[in-house]
Amino acid sequence: MTADTDSFATAGFPVDDRNRVKRLNKRAHYDRATIYPILDTAMLCHIAYVIDGQPFCTPTAFWREHDTLYWHGSSASRMLRAQAGQLPVCLTVTHMDGLVLARSGFHSSINYRSVMAFGVARSIEDAAGKRQAMDAFIGRFFPGRAEALRPPTGQEVKATSILAMEIEQASAKVRTGPPADDEADFSWPVWAGVIPLRTVVDAPQDCPRLPAGLTPGGDLADFAPGRVADAAYLAAYRRAYGD
Amino acid sequence: MTADTDSFATAGFPVDDRNRVKRLNKRAHYDRATIYPILDTAMLCHIAYVIDGQPFCTPTAFWREHDTLYWHGSSASRMLRAQAGQLPVCLTVTHMDGLVLARSGFHSSINYRSVMAFGVARSIEDAAGKRQAMDAFIGRFFPGRAEALRPPTGQEVKATSILAMEIEQASAKVRTGPPADDEADFSWPVWAGVIPLRTVVDAPQDCPRLPAGLTPGGDLADFAPGRVADAAYLAAYRRAYGD
Repeated sequence: MTADTDSFATAGFPVDDRNRVKRLNKRAHYDRATIYPILDTAMLCHIAYVIDGQPFCTPTAFWREHDTLYWHGSSASRMLRAQAGQLPVCLTVTHMDGLVLARSGFHSSINYRSVMAFGVARSIEDAAGKRQAMDAFIGRFFPGRAEALRPPTGQEVKATSILAMEIEQASAKVRTGPPADDEADFSWPVWAGVIPLRTVVDAPQDCPRLPAGLTPGGDLADFAPGRVADAAYLAAYRRAYGD
Repeated sequence: MTADTDSFATAGFPVDDRNRVKRLNKRAHYDRATIYPILDTAMLCHIAYVIDGQPFCTPTAFWREHDTLYWHGSSASRMLRAQAGQLPVCLTVTHMDGLVLARSGFHSSINYRSVMAFGVARSIEDAAGKRQAMDAFIGRFFPGRAEALRPPTGQEVKATSILAMEIEQASAKVRTGPPADDEADFSWPVWAGVIPLRTVVDAPQDCPRLPAGLTPGGDLADFAPGRVADAAYLAAYRRAYGD
């Protein structure tokens, strides 16, 4: 696992009608330097794909290596086989950072960081590649844990579906800061501001069947109680892949 | 705004291939009594829709009235017009409640509550209906606030897109509890359990241009600092619509 090179990490994705941000495009970004940290501070994504014209939006855990996104995707992978390996997807990650209470409904908003990534999903089918991806999935969030777990059986590897997608295009959209009210409205007599939201890690709960004497190991060091989840995911990512 | 009747709220949605949960179907639910609270404890959803075969997954704020979901949807609404008012969508809400650390990768998981809702989006086009929906959007999360804000102008109403969708079908998927390891693995010498995640409301940040003496009003009473965001959204919902 190696770090992204500087030039790679700051380069932009190509922009066309598919990924161009149409509304409030001052909030839009197309460079990896903005897009990657939004992905690497998350575990959850939502994936849109189409079966016979019907869209589906599935939540799942994902991770990134360079320009490739991986996820655990059993239902989509059945669809993938049905569609001869061609499954266009849009993978979206959203962090909700705060409620923006303006003096008008029109300027009321949300502070957020989101990424939409476009590409074509493929299934990792060979057992060795899949086993490696399964270990990377655990290791990306809990560095060192894959080696500490009971190793996967052949049957488990067979029963696991890992999908991968090269990012062909992506866009980020970010809003920060206080309400952007119309100039004439700043004196309107209602409270205005931001109510921040924060996702935190709580104290670990032992499995009821945990043998005596076992405590969380170094693999879980990034998830200390009270830590902001975003920061925990990013710290684990950097431990696994380098800065 | 009236409360759901008991019989309505506990009835199930019809199940077929579109909304049947295929994987781990012991986690599946199709009844409104399970599905509605998962929706009503959220502000953020992800919406999948298709344009010329390309799926898009867009994050946005939404709310529910009975079996109708509403959201602020400018990009989708352009598409809607392009597609003669027929835009099938899948609207998904996901709460991530904890990381499930098992003794094997295969049983490692996430505790979550999610809903996928299917239907056809329509745009609210008449000015009166749209104005009403805009007020409901604010009022559902901050009861009483719509009346306290600077009223929308005709131009703002025109520039706002509200989409609505009758839920034709939906499914919920829920995982709770400790790791479900294979019997032989419970003695494996690695810590196992759950690391809970919790999204909390932080202290409100005044707009830098707030006139002196203005403080958060009763409209924001559900968002007291330290409160779990889920509980805040649900409390506001119940204040707006009844229990």
